[in-house]
Amino acid sequence: MQKYFISDDDFKNNKITSDDAFHISNVMRSKPGDVVLVGNNGKTLKVRLTNITKNEVSYEIIEEETGNNELPVFISIFQGYPKGDKIEDVIKYGTEYGVAEFVPTIMKRSVFKLDSKKKESKLKRFQTIAKESSEQSFRNNMSIVSDIKYLKEIDFSQYNVKILCYEEDAKIGEASNLKNIIKNLNLNDKVAVVIGPEGGVDDTEVEYLTSKGFIRCALGPRILRTEVALYYILSAISYEMELK
Amino acid sequence: MQKYFISDDDFKNNKITSDDAFHISNVMRSKPGDVVLVGNNGKTLKVRLTNITKNEVSYEIIEEETGNNELPVFISIFQGYPKGDKIEDVIKYGTEYGVAEFVPTIMKRSVFKLDSKKKESKLKRFQTIAKESSEQSFRNNMSIVSDIKYLKEIDFSQYNVKILCYEEDAKIGEASNLKNIIKNLNLNDKVAVVIGPEGGVDDTEVEYLTSKGFIRCALGPRILRTEVALYYILSAISYEMELK
Repeated sequence: MQKYFISDDDFKNNKITSDDAFHISNVMRSKPGDVVLVGNNGKTLKVRLTNITKNEVSYEIIEEETGNNELPVFISIFQGYPKGDKIEDVIKYGTEYGVAEFVPTIMKRSVFKLDSKKKESKLKRFQTIAKESSEQSFRNNMSIVSDIKYLKEIDFSQYNVKILCYEEDAKIGEASNLKNIIKNLNLNDKVAVVIGPEGGVDDTEVEYLTSKGFIRCALGPRILRTEVALYYILSAISYEMELK
Repeated sequence: MQKYFISDDDFKNNKITSDDAFHISNVMRSKPGDVVLVGNNGKTLKVRLTNITKNEVSYEIIEEETGNNELPVFISIFQGYPKGDKIEDVIKYGTEYGVAEFVPTIMKRSVFKLDSKKKESKLKRFQTIAKESSEQSFRNNMSIVSDIKYLKEIDFSQYNVKILCYEEDAKIGEASNLKNIIKNLNLNDKVAVVIGPEGGVDDTEVEYLTSKGFIRCALGPRILRTEVALYYILSAISYEMELK
């Protein structure tokens, strides 16, 4: 069954507008009577479509869905901006793995240059990927891409758990920090995870982040590429907190 | 430092031949005196290059490297053959995550059709990816791609732990099988992991595999795409066995 995350206004008014209306009418070619899921702010409704145009779709509510498959902690991934389009896969698959928020982060070793025109179109594209991946994986909450930021612009004060993925420590055998953090996670903790771009985290960035309360963590003894490092953390958290 | 996995013969004779010799001479433009790592059958030597041609490179041994970053269990990933080139990323990144062996597996819902000519060139390409990724991530053992096979052709009798990733069980809340298996792993266990292609594992395949001793496991409550499912298992095993 198709799921659509819709705006607060649409949710209040039992309707679907914007690109989703176009998707329902012209891509899915849905008919009145068809059933879809609509999501907003953690709520999911099973609804029956009543009237369909390419600009607006109305529906009646059948029932509220009560399942919840969200990770028990809120995870923000501060992904050091990698080369090429790799960040798109990070967002797509990271959403399925349960990430709450992505912040593409420009770090010392990022090749990406921030120009405001490029930034806006990139950000919009990333947000579309996050929305579609959230819908396809039936997340309760839509994962968000909040902004593209320089590391120093980011305010980490809202996070009570701060993980810095640091491959240099893998080389010297550090193997306890991540497990120690994950074993002590509590429901609804806010977890910030910083992952360096290709080439890793620069020494001055390590210093800066540890001064902000980040704990340097190796992700096992092997060095993982930037674009797949997040899965280690997300899996470990799911394994520890969601499996019994 | 560059690492090269070389053949048994070359290793015995302190030389590097084949594509690696070309890589050393013409891509890296190495000079006599340069130091590289050579690997064979779990051993790693730091060596100094002595004579370099594009067909053959000779070296003298400086010392044996004693570090070991291999996963404590032997993991074979039987990856249901996915669409497009996705399997190449599975091999590339799975190698970094510590996979010992990949078997691209043609299952009921795989779109890939096996023709012997295509198969040979594909397999060669996959093996090159596994070799290069093993070298880049400084694995002690080179991960291997053994063959492209139909599910029914595979002999699972050598494995003492058998995991079937099964998303349907995620939907009904199964959340203990994987953790139970991983908590009870022992050093040097041989672990077979079957991951279905897009669309998942067919009912008759589930029946067949459970008759062979496979345990159906959900990978947490969210549905992961076939091409990223392996990271969940590999991370969970690393987290449980390698982190303290």
